[in-house]
Amino acid sequence: MINNISKIVLIVEYDGRRYYGFQWQKELPTIQSELEGAIKKLTGESSRITGASRTDTGVHARGQVASFRTTSSLSPQTIVKALNFYLPDDIAVKAACRVSIDFNVRKGALSREYEYKILNSWVRSPLAEGFSYRVVTKLNIEIMNEACKILEGEHDFASFVTILPGIKSTRRTIYEAEVTRENELVTFRIVANSFLPHQVRNTVGLLIKVGKSKVGVEELAHIMEQKTLGLAGPTAPPYGLCLIRVNYPGDSEFKYENVCN
Amino acid sequence: MINNISKIVLIVEYDGRRYYGFQWQKELPTIQSELEGAIKKLTGESSRITGASRTDTGVHARGQVASFRTTSSLSPQTIVKALNFYLPDDIAVKAACRVSIDFNVRKGALSREYEYKILNSWVRSPLAEGFSYRVVTKLNIEIMNEACKILEGEHDFASFVTILPGIKSTRRTIYEAEVTRENELVTFRIVANSFLPHQVRNTVGLLIKVGKSKVGVEELAHIMEQKTLGLAGPTAPPYGLCLIRVNYPGDSEFKYENVCN
Repeated sequence: MINNISKIVLIVEYDGRRYYGFQWQKELPTIQSELEGAIKKLTGESSRITGASRTDTGVHARGQVASFRTTSSLSPQTIVKALNFYLPDDIAVKAACRVSIDFNVRKGALSREYEYKILNSWVRSPLAEGFSYRVVTKLNIEIMNEACKILEGEHDFASFVTILPGIKSTRRTIYEAEVTRENELVTFRIVANSFLPHQVRNTVGLLIKVGKSKVGVEELAHIMEQKTLGLAGPTAPPYGLCLIRVNYPGDSEFKYENVCN
Repeated sequence: MINNISKIVLIVEYDGRRYYGFQWQKELPTIQSELEGAIKKLTGESSRITGASRTDTGVHARGQVASFRTTSSLSPQTIVKALNFYLPDDIAVKAACRVSIDFNVRKGALSREYEYKILNSWVRSPLAEGFSYRVVTKLNIEIMNEACKILEGEHDFASFVTILPGIKSTRRTIYEAEVTRENELVTFRIVANSFLPHQVRNTVGLLIKVGKSKVGVEELAHIMEQKTLGLAGPTAPPYGLCLIRVNYPGDSEFKYENVCN
């Protein structure tokens, strides 16, 4: 075994209900601490995990991307199997690949895709419990999509954030924003280069107001143009939100297509 | 309040994991006992619930249909709200309507529709946990659909059942049977006039063998033709199964379309 350091990229799926978000927090269960614990059991090394997108407390992920350095020469397939053996049932590594040591899962990413599920019904749904936010008032999907069109593009999203921990710019580019309905299930899908803290959930909170005709599309545009912290919202609850995937350039060392089938 | 007896039909959704099936069992939690308990709290009456399709231990339902008699003149909307207040989080009444006293949710039904979810992946999925059965070997969907075509129509399904508690005939008519794939999620959908005990799960077990090329389509036809108890199978686990809906004739007093939007 050659004692060279290499970097492993993981695709991670989790039910976020039991966790205080992705990022490590002292004495609290987080996705990062669970992953680092499983890696330590496998390799004996105290590796630090880097995630491509920080998910909040209670937020789920279907395709989080995370990386760590290791001197282990275990095959990616063995790493997947062994980490899933050590990880709790509500976290799973779906795939792994070995990349060069300078590949950065966060900075190398082109965009992040999130989905927010709204149960638009006056009665609760046991099968959607824990993975959707229930809104009783019938939402107008057409008007919500008009609002989405205004959000698309490069804008200053300062109004969509309440806290700015060490963030230099509040400019972000939303590539796609769309609301679809399938019976009582309303899904908001958003793709952006990156997101400000709570940006997606504050966007959802505001879009729900638009869907209820409590805020007009012009008013939403005005809220965005004012660039004032905390103007958008309210913050929709975390359990409706899921990080679907993180996209990398076509010539990137890591892409979903390279490791998933 | 007129003390006339009327019949209430409910559409019921449940996460079946905590329950020993739909039907009442002494000292065990069942959907029926939870519904009857909630009705007693609401009306003060000891009503007996009738379900349109008996689901097994651990099986879920999106659209179970159940009925009970009552002297209460509460509106269907009030009944829905009040029952959901009394029911546990993993059971919900989605809709209710008042029908004539001789309407029978079981005998009046034209067909039952079930879905079985298979996670066709070598790694587990926290987000599909509890609602799908994982099969590692890549399943051949085309061959499984060829087998489905053989099952469709009126046949004697004795081979697909192991126990026959008071069942006169093992002939049933399958109207639709189909397998679809969306990435790693394989869904088997089946509609029949009614089902024998464990018929859907024994069909799934056999279809998985077909999808793995362990059993040929001709062999499946032969198993069916032999009409021998316990020949099909193995019985797939219950947690992948969900009762989607129960269909009634177009001129029926009760239809999903009458009560759901």
